[in-house]
Amino acid sequence: MSLREEALHMHKTNKGKLETVSKVPVRNAEDLSLAYSPGVAEPCKEIYDKPESVYDYTMKGNTVAVVSDGTAVLGLGNIGPEAAMPVMEGKAVLFKSFAGVDAFPICLKTTDVDKIVDTVKMLEPTFGGVNLEDIAAPNCFIIEDRLKKEMDIPVFHDDQHGTAIVTVAGLVNALRITGKSMPEIKVVASGAGAAGIAIIKLLYSYGVRDIIMCDSKGAVYEGRTFGMNEVKDQIAKITNRHRLEGSLQEVIKGADVFIGVSVAGALTKEMVASMNADPIIFAMANPDPEIMPDDAKAAGAIVVGTGRSDFPNQVNNVLAFPGIFRGALDVRATHINEKMKVAAVDAIAGLITVEELHADYVIPAPFDERVAPAVAAAVAKAAMETGVARLKADPEDVKEKTRKLAIIGKSE
Amino acid sequence: MSLREEALHMHKTNKGKLETVSKVPVRNAEDLSLAYSPGVAEPCKEIYDKPESVYDYTMKGNTVAVVSDGTAVLGLGNIGPEAAMPVMEGKAVLFKSFAGVDAFPICLKTTDVDKIVDTVKMLEPTFGGVNLEDIAAPNCFIIEDRLKKEMDIPVFHDDQHGTAIVTVAGLVNALRITGKSMPEIKVVASGAGAAGIAIIKLLYSYGVRDIIMCDSKGAVYEGRTFGMNEVKDQIAKITNRHRLEGSLQEVIKGADVFIGVSVAGALTKEMVASMNADPIIFAMANPDPEIMPDDAKAAGAIVVGTGRSDFPNQVNNVLAFPGIFRGALDVRATHINEKMKVAAVDAIAGLITVEELHADYVIPAPFDERVAPAVAAAVAKAAMETGVARLKADPEDVKEKTRKLAIIGKSE
Repeated sequence: MSLREEALHMHKTNKGKLETVSKVPVRNAEDLSLAYSPGVAEPCKEIYDKPESVYDYTMKGNTVAVVSDGTAVLGLGNIGPEAAMPVMEGKAVLFKSFAGVDAFPICLKTTDVDKIVDTVKMLEPTFGGVNLEDIAAPNCFIIEDRLKKEMDIPVFHDDQHGTAIVTVAGLVNALRITGKSMPEIKVVASGAGAAGIAIIKLLYSYGVRDIIMCDSKGAVYEGRTFGMNEVKDQIAKITNRHRLEGSLQEVIKGADVFIGVSVAGALTKEMVASMNADPIIFAMANPDPEIMPDDAKAAGAIVVGTGRSDFPNQVNNVLAFPGIFRGALDVRATHINEKMKVAAVDAIAGLITVEELHADYVIPAPFDERVAPAVAAAVAKAAMETGVARLKADPEDVKEKTRKLAIIGKSE
Repeated sequence: MSLREEALHMHKTNKGKLETVSKVPVRNAEDLSLAYSPGVAEPCKEIYDKPESVYDYTMKGNTVAVVSDGTAVLGLGNIGPEAAMPVMEGKAVLFKSFAGVDAFPICLKTTDVDKIVDTVKMLEPTFGGVNLEDIAAPNCFIIEDRLKKEMDIPVFHDDQHGTAIVTVAGLVNALRITGKSMPEIKVVASGAGAAGIAIIKLLYSYGVRDIIMCDSKGAVYEGRTFGMNEVKDQIAKITNRHRLEGSLQEVIKGADVFIGVSVAGALTKEMVASMNADPIIFAMANPDPEIMPDDAKAAGAIVVGTGRSDFPNQVNNVLAFPGIFRGALDVRATHINEKMKVAAVDAIAGLITVEELHADYVIPAPFDERVAPAVAAAVAKAAMETGVARLKADPEDVKEKTRKLAIIGKSE
């Protein structure tokens, strides 16, 4: 069978990939009297008296909504909420498999920002966190910003921050190889969508100050009069300090790092050759990268990462989101803030030792069992240190719990 | 341990009762390539091309939202959406245990009718059905009516129709004992909440024409100038044709059947004695019925049903909702209509044979494994016959599937 046939067969045979399962037996009247009437009234009354105890007596504290409007699904684009369901179910499966998080797909019958925000806010009593997924820019930025302000549970747009965290982790390790530091490098990014914007913001948190973002119209700069939007205006304020105009080809000269979240073929060998010594390339367009790794290396690139599993250094969000939510949930964090993202970056990058580190291994493999536990512990710690945790937890306990809950790598 | 301690312990140890579980393994890169990228794109594309195939490739067709605003939870009243979570999780557990339906709690942070309607409508891509739960009257009527009109998946308010279906099933069998027929009986109902209204409407579908509904102010009649609302106005049009005024005590004289969904002690022995020969009493106030079964019998009642598991003839919704949704989902019904409810009533009542039938056994026991399969088959059949099914299924197959999926009565 082809991959297509196999994928369709698997989805059809199982009628999707996710089910809801009782954690308690309901086989007789005695079971029923505890799980339902009359026993169930007792946790209800406890929660009514002490609202925070909803985290003790219900699934809320381990449950994440995977929310999408279906406007930017994989490389498929705006395919709608029904067609997005397989991806959201898959995401929920990954949450459970990698970090024991109960996740549930919420595909919304609207693409209106206000309606999405209103709907997700209404769901807060049920969920311990919200993972926004495959929502097109610029709506994704507005929705995330509003929900973060208007909800008391962590809200995280994975296409932005998951990608950013794994990319920057790869860059941290790539710089260990080249011996350059964040404040001294020049970064040029191609793509002004969700991931591109988030990567630039996270690089800024890491002290990178020489950044130029290009969109399809070339370098973005403050005061550019065409093809701008609110988010690009924000980015223009913190990047391209010399207000360079021109195409990617022009502004990439002398850059140390290329970050591609745009389209296949956007980067040529000539452009790589025009970069500074030891250029680092993250070419993450899917399925075909901005430049193929072999071409990039032939042109002088020292480290190349892509979004693909058939090349080294795969930027795969699964390295980030399961552990991030695990850590956030375990300390009942109200938000996932910048420090928690940085902690996740460092946890992912730090798993590769000096001895192991080399140009084809700057990012751990997706199924490296150490990743989610390390990320969860680091994120929980950062949440406590930055005052967004409502519960204390020993990071070592968080790590051990994550290890136990994950099922990846374990036999049946 | 007391029931209270045991219930709290069970809920706390398990952190609620429900989890989401993957139906497919995700242990290595090959699994990932099918369940997630790149394989997942294939079912996405199929659904984009053929929207109806969302039922083939995703969990939607087996998944029900258990929606509440927490305004009328058990006997606890308006305790809010967080405190309602244990009940909604419990309901989801029952859906799965009795009929293999994947259900998920959706507790909403609002009690506003428009916001509830808007939110639930937005969730349609994810769910195959909506079970409204523990929403106070009269909002529950408005919400259900609007959602039924504005959604293409079945919407069912269990506190209304589940209770009504099981009560009427009990009445069908009770009348087999007394030899009276629906069109000739006089029914007096006490309580004008969700369940009371639905019972009266369903009795009307069964040909009962002599009905008087009482609320706390006495008999409801057309033109009553006090304590009315839209729903009571509707009910007044189809009941109490002689426009009798007065208290329950006055109007119950000569009645054949009393239906209580009101408050403990509402019915006295004297009132039962004033009824017609062989009175039938369903006293379902919780936890204490309108009259205790022993008192009712002492006063002449021939059949007594309550909401309690420690008396015979327990009116327990679990006899209805799992099979109803199972049947509706299996034929992709767009609605749960009156004929489907009647089919459920007949299926429940019909399980008790002439030989088995007696005054203390007019309603099957909650854990009778035959119930959900029989209800599912009957409901699926009625859906097909009334043109609300989008898929054909052999009712015998539906019955067999339900039997296989249910876990009640089965050992671990």
